[in-house]
Amino acid sequence: VSAVLPAGGSGERLGGATPKQFCALQGRPLVSYAVWAMERISWISDIIVVVSPENIKTMKTIIEKYGHKRVTVVEGGITRHRSIFNGLKVFAEKEFSSHLLQKPEVVIIHDAVRPFVEEDILSKVVMAAKEHGAAGAIRPLVSTVIASAADGCLDHSLERAKYRASEMPQAFLFDIIHEAYQQCTDYDLDYGTECLHLALKYCKTNAKLVEGTADLWKVTYKRDLYAAESIIKDNLSQEVCVITDAKETVAQVGCLLSESLKSQIKVETVSISQSRNDNHLQNILSGQCYSFVCVNDKKCAIQETQQLVDMLEKSDVPLFYPVVLISVHLDVPENNSFSIGMEELTSIKKFARETKKKNILVYGLLIQYK
Amino acid sequence: VSAVLPAGGSGERLGGATPKQFCALQGRPLVSYAVWAMERISWISDIIVVVSPENIKTMKTIIEKYGHKRVTVVEGGITRHRSIFNGLKVFAEKEFSSHLLQKPEVVIIHDAVRPFVEEDILSKVVMAAKEHGAAGAIRPLVSTVIASAADGCLDHSLERAKYRASEMPQAFLFDIIHEAYQQCTDYDLDYGTECLHLALKYCKTNAKLVEGTADLWKVTYKRDLYAAESIIKDNLSQEVCVITDAKETVAQVGCLLSESLKSQIKVETVSISQSRNDNHLQNILSGQCYSFVCVNDKKCAIQETQQLVDMLEKSDVPLFYPVVLISVHLDVPENNSFSIGMEELTSIKKFARETKKKNILVYGLLIQYK
Repeated sequence: VSAVLPAGGSGERLGGATPKQFCALQGRPLVSYAVWAMERISWISDIIVVVSPENIKTMKTIIEKYGHKRVTVVEGGITRHRSIFNGLKVFAEKEFSSHLLQKPEVVIIHDAVRPFVEEDILSKVVMAAKEHGAAGAIRPLVSTVIASAADGCLDHSLERAKYRASEMPQAFLFDIIHEAYQQCTDYDLDYGTECLHLALKYCKTNAKLVEGTADLWKVTYKRDLYAAESIIKDNLSQEVCVITDAKETVAQVGCLLSESLKSQIKVETVSISQSRNDNHLQNILSGQCYSFVCVNDKKCAIQETQQLVDMLEKSDVPLFYPVVLISVHLDVPENNSFSIGMEELTSIKKFARETKKKNILVYGLLIQYK
Repeated sequence: VSAVLPAGGSGERLGGATPKQFCALQGRPLVSYAVWAMERISWISDIIVVVSPENIKTMKTIIEKYGHKRVTVVEGGITRHRSIFNGLKVFAEKEFSSHLLQKPEVVIIHDAVRPFVEEDILSKVVMAAKEHGAAGAIRPLVSTVIASAADGCLDHSLERAKYRASEMPQAFLFDIIHEAYQQCTDYDLDYGTECLHLALKYCKTNAKLVEGTADLWKVTYKRDLYAAESIIKDNLSQEVCVITDAKETVAQVGCLLSESLKSQIKVETVSISQSRNDNHLQNILSGQCYSFVCVNDKKCAIQETQQLVDMLEKSDVPLFYPVVLISVHLDVPENNSFSIGMEELTSIKKFARETKKKNILVYGLLIQYK
């Protein structure tokens, strides 16, 4: 399975100068979210992003900056269908690409401006495409659809229950959709909008329709950018990972913290000794958790924090957004002089200054404890 | 002209416990925005809000809290059409209401979950309804609309350019839409969604379709609440009103401030002497400006600020959101002792504590000036 992401739109409905796929949400361009939604799925081999000629450089910079992998940038045409066709050619026509990519059995077509696509729906449309030749996500209509007469008056309204909105992702047997694009007319390429329609018209393939979730919606207007940004912010702060070492008092504090946070957000708890041995923490990192609380005995707090920062650096988590790491230093009774505490905090401050450059925000908290 | 706002939906697509029309945006329920959008238009006589029985009390509380006027709350039915019909009955059927409202020539129907409707589109649909008997706002389709066959596969896709999404507001000659509701079947009342369709089917009235703006969209999903909230925040901080007295140095500072703000946001400038004589400031207040900078000579700053607060209190501006008023006290050379400045600031602090209770946030700024 490979994927083609048309990202050549001019975004005129948005009313801004920047095409919407390049608008930044929490500092990161929309298209990077859509690319990442594909990239994180291991069974998708190649991701073709089709952009207009003037944005090729921008797109390549984005790929480098966010460390996107398995992505090929292709120059688009002047319409959506021409751009998608160009994307498909990379797999099929030698003269079009310097290195021909392996032709996939199934190709996913997804918009660069639908950032929240989940593996579940991708997998459903791919399975359905294998069986039926073509498949696409649909949603119930939000408004009644009407046809107008030549005089600008109502001709008739469609019964809402009988129709659906055709959304993305869609998937096709590669040979079917490629054939359809080769057969179709210039009129189709210039004025058409619907890939499922081409598969039906030119390859007699009735696409299977798959109910999608509400988050498949397309970022079209400025309000959609607002909505997407709020959803991203929400997602970033939905999970916290609490890390403690195994020492009794420390583990107890970590445990109390987890309990009191649980009513608010999703909490993962990891013991440091555990994190060295198994890959629980690795799984949390690949699940894109951005908030960490590391509770440690004061004596080894800096080393443990350093270790966690090393792990975070190796993952791609801080590439996308700032990671917040609160390093809690528990000072146990036998040694509670205030000046030593200050020393600790000075060194964590220095450490934090370094990690900030790597997009990891470390905060130190010294708790003197009896 | 009167208006009926169906607000009886359960908001199941939102996935929350509170129906979306009662969800708070910047602290204020969505329905209050839609009511206010009607209320501020002087040529709309009565506003009928139709809510489900369990929300009548909530709705009445909202009307009282936000000082809404010309509003009648009516109990809705179990479907959208039944609720709208109940709303219309208030004008026509004696047994339905204790005090029969004056029957309007034209009735506007608008959703409580479309908060951003402007006078321009309301006026257009009303004019078109007077001419054609019925009229409704439309928007281009965002997605292609498809029909599915019985096996869940694509039957055909509609050519996007020939169809439109039917939105709100809609307007009707009262007699036409009332007649249509009286004639229509229980099936229509239970499963129909489109008022324009009823006017066509039962009164042979082909509604005039009027292109609406993008901000007419309906708050349906959680992401739409996010979007609406961001739009409201944006609107609140788009305009600032700078008020100065006529004294030369003061007017000069006000003028410089206006100039430097102009590149960022909309700036209205008012001279205090002017504000007493004409209604320029009154117009600004009724335009819902929420940010004020009042530049005054230190000697009369408190009195001028007090005067402005009185005007704000009399308007309905602070009912909806907090008003920010920065009171700038210019201290001119002849008398620049620091202690007197402190006294000034103490009294503005005390004053601010009082105005905060009225949702007016006063900040004092003392500038010593040479």
